[in-house]
Amino acid sequence: MPSKIAIVGTGLVGRAWSIVFARAGHDVSIFDPMEGASAKALELIAQNLPALAEANLLRGETPAAVLSRISRADILEEALANAVHCQESAPERVEVKAALYKELDRIAAPETVLASSTSGIPASQFSEGLAGQRRVLVAHPINPPHIIPLVEIVPAPWTDPAIVTQTRDLMAAVGQSPISTTREINGFIVNRLQGALLAEAFRLVEDGVCSVADVDAAIADGLGLRWSFIGPFETIDLNSARGVPGYCDMLGQLYYDLAKEQADLREWTPDLVAKIDEQRRAALPLSEHQARQDWRDRRLAALVGHKREQAQKDGTS
Amino acid sequence: MPSKIAIVGTGLVGRAWSIVFARAGHDVSIFDPMEGASAKALELIAQNLPALAEANLLRGETPAAVLSRISRADILEEALANAVHCQESAPERVEVKAALYKELDRIAAPETVLASSTSGIPASQFSEGLAGQRRVLVAHPINPPHIIPLVEIVPAPWTDPAIVTQTRDLMAAVGQSPISTTREINGFIVNRLQGALLAEAFRLVEDGVCSVADVDAAIADGLGLRWSFIGPFETIDLNSARGVPGYCDMLGQLYYDLAKEQADLREWTPDLVAKIDEQRRAALPLSEHQARQDWRDRRLAALVGHKREQAQKDGTS
Repeated sequence: MPSKIAIVGTGLVGRAWSIVFARAGHDVSIFDPMEGASAKALELIAQNLPALAEANLLRGETPAAVLSRISRADILEEALANAVHCQESAPERVEVKAALYKELDRIAAPETVLASSTSGIPASQFSEGLAGQRRVLVAHPINPPHIIPLVEIVPAPWTDPAIVTQTRDLMAAVGQSPISTTREINGFIVNRLQGALLAEAFRLVEDGVCSVADVDAAIADGLGLRWSFIGPFETIDLNSARGVPGYCDMLGQLYYDLAKEQADLREWTPDLVAKIDEQRRAALPLSEHQARQDWRDRRLAALVGHKREQAQKDGTS
Repeated sequence: MPSKIAIVGTGLVGRAWSIVFARAGHDVSIFDPMEGASAKALELIAQNLPALAEANLLRGETPAAVLSRISRADILEEALANAVHCQESAPERVEVKAALYKELDRIAAPETVLASSTSGIPASQFSEGLAGQRRVLVAHPINPPHIIPLVEIVPAPWTDPAIVTQTRDLMAAVGQSPISTTREINGFIVNRLQGALLAEAFRLVEDGVCSVADVDAAIADGLGLRWSFIGPFETIDLNSARGVPGYCDMLGQLYYDLAKEQADLREWTPDLVAKIDEQRRAALPLSEHQARQDWRDRRLAALVGHKREQAQKDGTS
């Protein structure tokens, strides 16, 4: 059943969310406080939809049908009226979010969920003390959400668990892949995992063990292949006939010894960052950076399409 | 120009290596000390080749052409005669390797490279003091190497750097993706990166932050998509218009704070392993384990095919 979704903030992230909800059949009302921003956003969305249709990213809907479900709201009240869910993608500054959530909480009906796209600010920092603090949480996408399905749902200490469940269900229903935490945690899940791997990647380069390109190949031509369709736990589970316990019997001691070597806290010093950047710039001059970002997004879209095809073929999901 | 390659040990890994070298046009001589093992291996290879041809994994060669380049050696001397490279895939026990490398070094011509497929035993532990210790190193594949291109080349302290270069060149020439370290290091590269991420994954489950399935989704529906075609450094480089320095200015402090939280060394206790296994077994009973492994290998092959197609289409590699 189509519901109304409010999108607050119409930058890259807000526009991608508009497409996610509209292609799933929902009515989307977009609002941006900056003069002319939401009109511009609607234009950009309209321009992008044909390419998304061609990449089979509109769930079989036509660009016209998707576009017809997205409308501009001139004021915040209009965007929030009767919305079941508000997805906020405002600038990443805690004072901006805090002021905005006061307004959102005052205007939105008590049953409207207020979800933030923030990549790093815990919801407790902008919802404490609000009358409706129980319906505020983080729903952090991996950009761009109309291509990458993952959404991290992270409650504040006072978020109602039913709101977490409702948001998970909504995200799954529109075709995203929601995960959730039982409590608020710094970095959420994805950046905690990424940070752990990056810490070792930086350490290897700082210690002169291998090149930046070789670290990248270790993942992109090696482990990352599995990780693009089964996660780290299923990977190790399938590497032993006895599953996780068999794997841990075999390699637990090795990993414990490595963890001891990796427990030394390192700063990413300017020298180390410069060393890495020098190798990256030799591989990709900044002048070709934008073109490579566009290439990455095309490849991401193609990969998501490939995964969908494979899943349909073998009946998995 | 075709060369002769010796394959010592004809288990799963040795058989996959045989295919890697034979489909690239080399003459492959396989040897296994166990009675009947190499004959059985040749049969298994012959059985597998048609499916590999269908999955476009034989570099356009026919199964018959690939098979015709692989022959059985009855004795080690025969396998090593005139070989430029010996790829050893014997059991993962240091005393087995130590005894074997004494023999390999005694028999093989001085210019034959002796490369071990070991996933965790540094070459210094089985090559020290050999007359030809300068030509011994690790060339560790990610299984199975006829599907996954990555090979980690890790020298012992006494390995000749020219041998590292020669092995990298050979691996690249047969279509693998070689990486190398400047010195011997525990866990090589891939397992150091994997271990760092697993440590955090285990910690999140131990602390009750999220489920095993949600950790897996965080990677498989999120970060792992990028990581299957660009590595961790290129990922962060492309996430800021200023590249790595811009990314580190934005998120370096967050990652440093996370690293502080992640520096507490954790053991993978039996209770924790059981908790993870319980969730995995609910998702996949051990009775379906083998079928899921087969599915994983089909998906890996399809993914490698997809990447090759995309690279051909956009002219990248």
